[in-house]
Amino acid sequence: MTDYGDLSALLVNCSIKADSAGSHTQRLIDRAAGIMRDEGVAVDTLYALDHRIAFGMEEDLGDTFGFTDEWPSIQDKIMAADILVLGSPIWLGVMSSVAALVIERMYAYSGHTNDKGQYLYYGKTAGCIVTGNEDGVKAVSRDVLYAMQHIGYTIPPQADCGWIGEIGPGASYGDPGEDGARPVGYESEFTNKNTTFMVWNLLHLARMLKDAGGIPAVGNTRAHWREVTNAADQTIEPVG
Amino acid sequence: MTDYGDLSALLVNCSIKADSAGSHTQRLIDRAAGIMRDEGVAVDTLYALDHRIAFGMEEDLGDTFGFTDEWPSIQDKIMAADILVLGSPIWLGVMSSVAALVIERMYAYSGHTNDKGQYLYYGKTAGCIVTGNEDGVKAVSRDVLYAMQHIGYTIPPQADCGWIGEIGPGASYGDPGEDGARPVGYESEFTNKNTTFMVWNLLHLARMLKDAGGIPAVGNTRAHWREVTNAADQTIEPVG
Amino acid sequence: MTDYGDLSALLVNCSIKADSAGSHTQRLIDRAAGIMRDEGVAVDTLYALDHRIAFGMEEDLGDTFGFTDEWPSIQDKIMAADILVLGSPIWLGVMSSVAALVIERMYAYSGHTNDKGQYLYYGKTAGCIVTGNEDGVKAVSRDVLYAMQHIGYTIPPQADCGWIGEIGPGASYGDPGEDGARPVGYESEFTNKNTTFMVWNLLHLARMLKDAGGIPAVGNTRAHWREVTNAADQTIEPVG
Amino acid sequence: MTDYGDLSALLVNCSIKADSAGSHTQRLIDRAAGIMRDEGVAVDTLYALDHRIAFGMEEDLGDTFGFTDEWPSIQDKIMAADILVLGSPIWLGVMSSVAALVIERMYAYSGHTNDKGQYLYYGKTAGCIVTGNEDGVKAVSRDVLYAMQHIGYTIPPQADCGWIGEIGPGASYGDPGEDGARPVGYESEFTNKNTTFMVWNLLHLARMLKDAGGIPAVGNTRAHWREVTNAADQTIEPVG
Repeated sequence: MTDYGDLSALLVNCSIKADSAGSHTQRLIDRAAGIMRDEGVAVDTLYALDHRIAFGMEEDLGDTFGFTDEWPSIQDKIMAADILVLGSPIWLGVMSSVAALVIERMYAYSGHTNDKGQYLYYGKTAGCIVTGNEDGVKAVSRDVLYAMQHIGYTIPPQADCGWIGEIGPGASYGDPGEDGARPVGYESEFTNKNTTFMVWNLLHLARMLKDAGGIPAVGNTRAHWREVTNAADQTIEPVG
Repeated sequence: MTDYGDLSALLVNCSIKADSAGSHTQRLIDRAAGIMRDEGVAVDTLYALDHRIAFGMEEDLGDTFGFTDEWPSIQDKIMAADILVLGSPIWLGVMSSVAALVIERMYAYSGHTNDKGQYLYYGKTAGCIVTGNEDGVKAVSRDVLYAMQHIGYTIPPQADCGWIGEIGPGASYGDPGEDGARPVGYESEFTNKNTTFMVWNLLHLARMLKDAGGIPAVGNTRAHWREVTNAADQTIEPVG
Repeated sequence: MTDYGDLSALLVNCSIKADSAGSHTQRLIDRAAGIMRDEGVAVDTLYALDHRIAFGMEEDLGDTFGFTDEWPSIQDKIMAADILVLGSPIWLGVMSSVAALVIERMYAYSGHTNDKGQYLYYGKTAGCIVTGNEDGVKAVSRDVLYAMQHIGYTIPPQADCGWIGEIGPGASYGDPGEDGARPVGYESEFTNKNTTFMVWNLLHLARMLKDAGGIPAVGNTRAHWREVTNAADQTIEPVG
Repeated sequence: MTDYGDLSALLVNCSIKADSAGSHTQRLIDRAAGIMRDEGVAVDTLYALDHRIAFGMEEDLGDTFGFTDEWPSIQDKIMAADILVLGSPIWLGVMSSVAALVIERMYAYSGHTNDKGQYLYYGKTAGCIVTGNEDGVKAVSRDVLYAMQHIGYTIPPQADCGWIGEIGPGASYGDPGEDGARPVGYESEFTNKNTTFMVWNLLHLARMLKDAGGIPAVGNTRAHWREVTNAADQTIEPVG
């Protein structure tokens, strides 16, 4: 049996609801977090709107907006975690404003490098959880996972999962079932399977990356990429 | 020095030009392929439109469309490669029809499993190369990389690269420079750096995955995911 | 009662199935076409894969690919129609390769101008129909409608409609219902309402545009935009 | 000469910068606003982050987040305007969190109907302005314009415009030019032309819609769509 006891994970809920109790996305986040906890991972979950997060492509906005920007402490948690999972609802087919805000603030740190000289998020893995009652799981995951790999995360296979109902308004994930039925979506074989796959693949890649001491610092550092085999040194004929 | 001599890579150009000689995207593909070759990887490149590829969510369309579907031999090459890179031009801000076609045909095989019971593309890594003269590198990469991770590929950090000029019509990547200047885009520090990062990260992850014998087959097979810690077995309170 | 008898519409099915009989998207296309016919519009439907369409950003590829490019006759139908509706299935969350191909070929003509000097598709309206059994109606519509407005079409309110089932594999639109139930999706209030709204809004805007003789040719022609109030002539302070 | 003196427009800047003075997007917004003003339109511009806007799919969040939600007064301005233009920067290839927030709050009102029984935003036109220094004008416009048409706006032809430089970091729109050159992007024929086209097409459609008293309320109201020719009443054979 592989031991995951030294791994840590952070799952961030980017719901736009002020009260986390009403978040449907949280139910699927909890499902994913539960697997990780059962496997011994140190799991932390965070509800973004429980914090005052300022807007801006800055690391710390301080009191710019009349409140104390709480992002820096969230960033600390993100940096401490081997695995990051962003959860987002779907509104008009795209990720929530809160998810966009979280990604912007993470991006503001992307100029920093780790002790190997790589971008800060190298050596970590990321996944995405999406719920809604209409349409857009793939569209949201696409935007979230793209952003994560762009700033340095490794994306394992099938790193997203979610639930939506038949097109149109209706019940959301985790709403009480009608006539004593199980809560909406809880029995979805597709959602449960994909959530399981996502979590295990995050664990597998995180294990692999941690054991390897991260990704080798060859060809992927701003300071030294020209010193190894590189794209600039290739001789390529022009068109025509 | 790490040896990459046992790795293989396939770079597929999804240009919509009938004649590959005029493909700008090919120039950046060649740049990425060159790095891999210099590092000893067995590299193959393929120009999709040199082949007759049928439409359909099928493995082999045979003579359905009045010509012999050549996809199955392309699929063989894809399955033989540890690393897959799709190159696409940008048209109206999205990937080319040929790129969409290639992805559809790969998807048609996604029901198959490897000898561990995982989806077919597990244990491989994928990246994306995009050129255009206007706008859309990230949009195209997003769609391509999402599809690749969805069917089983691992996406390393910064797995996309590309070139576009200032907004509006103008020269494309690899067009001869004006007044004796170097071909368009060839001196782009940003493009050369990102291409280098992409290739090395593909190599690093491919090395890691090959040495590990792929991704462990725990929690990610259709047949056995319910037998390990999984999402269905979590006890989650409904909303409200 | 408004008379729509002088309006014409073309609905193009961009399914990737060789045999149109199996197209689920066609069922929803037929529903939209039916409304238009009932209102006296001259309606034509076209199944793209019944034609041999070449790849390329060209108006007529001739025999480049070893068959006669049939696009030019399709383009004639598009130009003859006041209303264009593109129908697409969803594969991996995006529009089909055939839809991308159709859009590319339309785009190849966008350099032409109408007799007012505007881009060719000015004065026409466009909509989008999407079906799948999983997820992505909005993502597909977004790409299709964006492309249409970009090349000159006017997009009325709520110009897209579609059907998908609950997340995961399952029955598709128009599949026979179980136990004698109505075909899948046919009773969807949401889909029927949105399809109705789309069609009527296409009719309303097409009526308005036709009665007005199209969009006035002021400020939107390549030849004369600098002669009217324009963006280049504004005096704007730089940043900082 | 057509008179636009009775038309009103609102241009909303969704920059994530606390200080509007540094917004590059504002420069292009001002260019578009200038054309409208020159044509007699009553133009208002609004910098979203000058206001405290709460998160949530609600019309008025009151003091939920410890500050007074200022959205309702912004909504009043949106409802008073015949033309709405959203301006957004690009971050990681997508629209800003502030743009997503603005769209969410507008969406929260979409259940309301106008005095004809249509969704609230019917009869109005919308456009989109995007700037960045890298890539993503089309991707951002696609998401913004899709949302606008989905909630009821009419999208005229070529309703988006923007500016980006050659791929990679660099100067942004409106930055002072080097060596006494004009500010960055101000001379872009492409950007100036597209901005002009966008504004004039917004004017043309707004004029047309206002003169017609909006879009006829036939086939597009929740209360009465089943009483006219509609999708539910079509007889469509099932598949197979």
